[in-house]
Amino acid sequence: MERKYAMILGNLGNTRDRFCSGYKTNPSTSEMLQQAALIPYVKGIELVGTWDIDEKNAGEMKRQLGDLGLDCVSIIPDLFANPLFWKGSYTAADPKVRQSAIDYTRKMCDIAIDLHCPIINLWPGQDGYDYLLSANYDAQRGWMCDAVSLLAQEFPGLKFALEYKPKEPRTHSTLARMADSLLLALETGQSNVGITIDTGHAYVAGEVVGESIVLARRTGNKLFHMHFNDNHGTWDDDMIVGTVHSIAYLETLYWLDRTGYSGWLSMDQYPYREDGAGAIGESILWLYRFDEILQANRTKIDQLIDEGDPIQTSRFLRNALLKG
Amino acid sequence: MERKYAMILGNLGNTRDRFCSGYKTNPSTSEMLQQAALIPYVKGIELVGTWDIDEKNAGEMKRQLGDLGLDCVSIIPDLFANPLFWKGSYTAADPKVRQSAIDYTRKMCDIAIDLHCPIINLWPGQDGYDYLLSANYDAQRGWMCDAVSLLAQEFPGLKFALEYKPKEPRTHSTLARMADSLLLALETGQSNVGITIDTGHAYVAGEVVGESIVLARRTGNKLFHMHFNDNHGTWDDDMIVGTVHSIAYLETLYWLDRTGYSGWLSMDQYPYREDGAGAIGESILWLYRFDEILQANRTKIDQLIDEGDPIQTSRFLRNALLKG
Amino acid sequence: MERKYAMILGNLGNTRDRFCSGYKTNPSTSEMLQQAALIPYVKGIELVGTWDIDEKNAGEMKRQLGDLGLDCVSIIPDLFANPLFWKGSYTAADPKVRQSAIDYTRKMCDIAIDLHCPIINLWPGQDGYDYLLSANYDAQRGWMCDAVSLLAQEFPGLKFALEYKPKEPRTHSTLARMADSLLLALETGQSNVGITIDTGHAYVAGEVVGESIVLARRTGNKLFHMHFNDNHGTWDDDMIVGTVHSIAYLETLYWLDRTGYSGWLSMDQYPYREDGAGAIGESILWLYRFDEILQANRTKIDQLIDEGDPIQTSRFLRNALLKG
Amino acid sequence: MERKYAMILGNLGNTRDRFCSGYKTNPSTSEMLQQAALIPYVKGIELVGTWDIDEKNAGEMKRQLGDLGLDCVSIIPDLFANPLFWKGSYTAADPKVRQSAIDYTRKMCDIAIDLHCPIINLWPGQDGYDYLLSANYDAQRGWMCDAVSLLAQEFPGLKFALEYKPKEPRTHSTLARMADSLLLALETGQSNVGITIDTGHAYVAGEVVGESIVLARRTGNKLFHMHFNDNHGTWDDDMIVGTVHSIAYLETLYWLDRTGYSGWLSMDQYPYREDGAGAIGESILWLYRFDEILQANRTKIDQLIDEGDPIQTSRFLRNALLKG
Repeated sequence: MERKYAMILGNLGNTRDRFCSGYKTNPSTSEMLQQAALIPYVKGIELVGTWDIDEKNAGEMKRQLGDLGLDCVSIIPDLFANPLFWKGSYTAADPKVRQSAIDYTRKMCDIAIDLHCPIINLWPGQDGYDYLLSANYDAQRGWMCDAVSLLAQEFPGLKFALEYKPKEPRTHSTLARMADSLLLALETGQSNVGITIDTGHAYVAGEVVGESIVLARRTGNKLFHMHFNDNHGTWDDDMIVGTVHSIAYLETLYWLDRTGYSGWLSMDQYPYREDGAGAIGESILWLYRFDEILQANRTKIDQLIDEGDPIQTSRFLRNALLKG
Repeated sequence: MERKYAMILGNLGNTRDRFCSGYKTNPSTSEMLQQAALIPYVKGIELVGTWDIDEKNAGEMKRQLGDLGLDCVSIIPDLFANPLFWKGSYTAADPKVRQSAIDYTRKMCDIAIDLHCPIINLWPGQDGYDYLLSANYDAQRGWMCDAVSLLAQEFPGLKFALEYKPKEPRTHSTLARMADSLLLALETGQSNVGITIDTGHAYVAGEVVGESIVLARRTGNKLFHMHFNDNHGTWDDDMIVGTVHSIAYLETLYWLDRTGYSGWLSMDQYPYREDGAGAIGESILWLYRFDEILQANRTKIDQLIDEGDPIQTSRFLRNALLKG
Repeated sequence: MERKYAMILGNLGNTRDRFCSGYKTNPSTSEMLQQAALIPYVKGIELVGTWDIDEKNAGEMKRQLGDLGLDCVSIIPDLFANPLFWKGSYTAADPKVRQSAIDYTRKMCDIAIDLHCPIINLWPGQDGYDYLLSANYDAQRGWMCDAVSLLAQEFPGLKFALEYKPKEPRTHSTLARMADSLLLALETGQSNVGITIDTGHAYVAGEVVGESIVLARRTGNKLFHMHFNDNHGTWDDDMIVGTVHSIAYLETLYWLDRTGYSGWLSMDQYPYREDGAGAIGESILWLYRFDEILQANRTKIDQLIDEGDPIQTSRFLRNALLKG
Repeated sequence: MERKYAMILGNLGNTRDRFCSGYKTNPSTSEMLQQAALIPYVKGIELVGTWDIDEKNAGEMKRQLGDLGLDCVSIIPDLFANPLFWKGSYTAADPKVRQSAIDYTRKMCDIAIDLHCPIINLWPGQDGYDYLLSANYDAQRGWMCDAVSLLAQEFPGLKFALEYKPKEPRTHSTLARMADSLLLALETGQSNVGITIDTGHAYVAGEVVGESIVLARRTGNKLFHMHFNDNHGTWDDDMIVGTVHSIAYLETLYWLDRTGYSGWLSMDQYPYREDGAGAIGESILWLYRFDEILQANRTKIDQLIDEGDPIQTSRFLRNALLKG
């Protein structure tokens, strides 16, 4: 299966945290697009709504992407940076805010169709809660289900990929893990609602990504999209792929193939203090290398997985993975 | 709603770990039953298959429970202590082992019916995996689903409650969290397959128990049973309720009521170095106190949950919970 | 022992995260001071260098604090928001940056003396590392030790309190936990170098605060200052005291007294979506209540700690802590 | 620097957990020794007191080790399996128990001298606490310090290596992390008291092993011994080296060399369901491979650590570590 590598455009932009309002200067969208096009293997781009794309620059964006030979892989509506959504977007207690979130997403869907972009990647980061006994979990799930159902019905030609994450910016997210997001996708009853795995979010959730892929497959081919990055295990550090985990990525690629995933492998990082293009480029090259190792050993891995002997797996990995 | 308190009989017995083969001496089953009957509010008993109950002592057990005025609340088949299941029970790669696990569970189901026990509490602790690239996650989930479906179909008068736990004894369990266990319950297609929440397992899984209760409710009233204990958040320490978490138990009782849970509140601890009856008794008394606080403030909590203002919630909790 | 409550002034200001650049509008320093003075029990203020205090407004600040009857409890030099320090302040690889950090701190020390402020609270948030094999741990610790030693020698009338935190904004901080910070304090050889415990940082570090207090006491009365907040255990959520942990705060106050701590209890929160004054006020009222419970039961707690029977401790806590 | 590989003999024996009392059958000590001698590169053996070695079999053990060409690298007194120590050994509240622990360790020291074994590896697993407000942290640390000081003074020819671990079997250990163990070593005032790093314990403690090595070096060459294994990050899974972490081991070997560590690299695993000799052998072969990669790139790594650019480090690691 041919790999299709993509990236989120904003990864090339400024970075900040709650302490420091900006570590870098922000290039223009146009400069970022040109930089992205030069990163080896990058063929697709994900755009964040409002920040990278809106109704005004959609035509210009389409032209630029075309000129650079890049596909628009997904649009990520901004449900996290707009202070209007500070206490939730689709699950805000205020019905007007919920309506605004839906209306705004509709606009992003229209743009996606215009750009021939197949996926709306929904990361409703502000939806969740911070304190115990301060949220109606039942109502929140209902509102989330209603909003996603409605959008999925209105835009049957688009795929809605729910990106789960256990925490940040809320201490607890409504869509926290693979399995609860699958339950919500089932609850919508819409076949164009599925899941995005962000490998770093999955690590923080305590998931083995290979197993999460299998869960999505068993629940009706629900894996729509993949975001790649790495972290130290307890927080979404959004680091370069391969700098902490190794075997986990090999296993991830293996199960993606085995479950018939044909979507994009998209980089989603946050290089606070590193060169953005360098950090994205490195991640792709690690994945490329893991993929070569997989291609050369797929039958052997099939066999190891059936044998279930960790010593054999260790022996194989030591020799197949490590130089020397 | 009247609370029904129960306990796992073996909590009164010996304790050990991988280093020390026994911290205490083991009383007889009969002695443990008499001890249990003296713990305030205990009206139900859970029995571990083989250890507490088998075909030979079932009649005698029935008589003793009757004499002591105790219900048999659940039977927990021993899928974890028998070395036959060291690499899995329902999901063992060896089909003979899988068959043994099913056959053994059938016997426990027969005994349950005989004892008028409504619930088979399935904790398939050995089902899972330890190393990456050493297990076929897809086959394992299929085998788990097959076994549970089969048993649920064969014993329609029993409820099969899946007790999830992220890890231990395997580094990763097949049934790890509420939502993935609900997916499996759905996959079986059997209405008598549901879930047991063990509060400590949920804490280790990073779950807020109140939210997990809501998830089970939204997936078709799937909460069948409750196990109570406490821990420090990263491991199943099986401690006395209330010695680490406080507000979480109040919230748990609140959502149990709000979702119409009418089952047992059963204590499941592992008092390594403490008096067993004392530790169980304490847990029940903490829950009893949290329950009194809930009863006195239910309407207020309804309102706080809708308001969603953590400062109001904090003010309420400070005054309603703390003495002074 | 009379409790002295304080707060960090900026807790009343704007909040943001890496996604959203501002959840609130920022009041003026003067407005925040007036707001602070109205919070019950607040008698001390901590000021963040540059943001709240600099050479220009020091005189005016002194006057305002005096008018409001507030002490300046500590100054916290801004070693975290200035992009100059994006790759470290005292431990930056660039010697010019290290020099800037030291020079800047000197200015803050001068202001502290002018304001009769006894403590420089050093939180060198940018000092640490993000990736493996990308930092010279040995050189970093040496530079940290050199800078702190130098400052402590130059300003013998000030106390330098090292505030440790395991991660954020770096994935790994140089001063990560109580014990490693004590080792650094020892290495400086200066008696006016000690430690600030931030309760939330300690929870993330896996510490029991009571034990951390004892460690500081045994290493020569090294506990200089206390920051209070709460969190869910894996990240510095900077929440209202008492909304997650309960017993831990009672134990903290107990060990503060037993080790003879006579410093301030200062609130350090980050109320992303809550009213700042309300959130700070709540924390103090929780501590106040825990303190009342402690005062009423100190002798009993002495005894429980010596007995070491968790069942007795549980019984006591259930009755002494919970209403009903 | 030539690597010296060793192992703990009991890793070849039976395994169990709190649920299952035995996964395997136990070979005799003599059989385990012969098995150990056949594992490539193994030249040293660690013996657990009472289990592997006591006053009666010491002579025979000495002969057998000699015949097999194996060194006795350390003796690990059994302070964890003997139920006498169920509530602590050196820190038990009962002074008779503390005395027993010291007396027993003395015997092990005598045997060590007899076997020309240079290190007593102290893992006081039962020393710590489980519940809040149930232990006198100050007294415990005092007792630990007293016991270790006394032994170190009595046996100046032996090195006492404190093996820290955050939890298990207690929920909190007295010797929990590198830095607090160094503080205790300093407090003893004895130069023959130092530290053992168990890589898995360090991962659970949230430590980067390379940095922990540096801490020990800066506190006066206090790293006495190394135990190797791997885990998934939150519990002491005692797995095969390299099956979860990769770069961390390369970095560990680098800093061992850079700080002049000349001790043993000893394998300490717990192969619950795997062949013991196979699991140990694999770990050594992973380390051997990481070591080859280090030898070939030491100068480059020196340079990367000074440059501090994660993109350069990533590029290097991708090419130096991974095949292809």
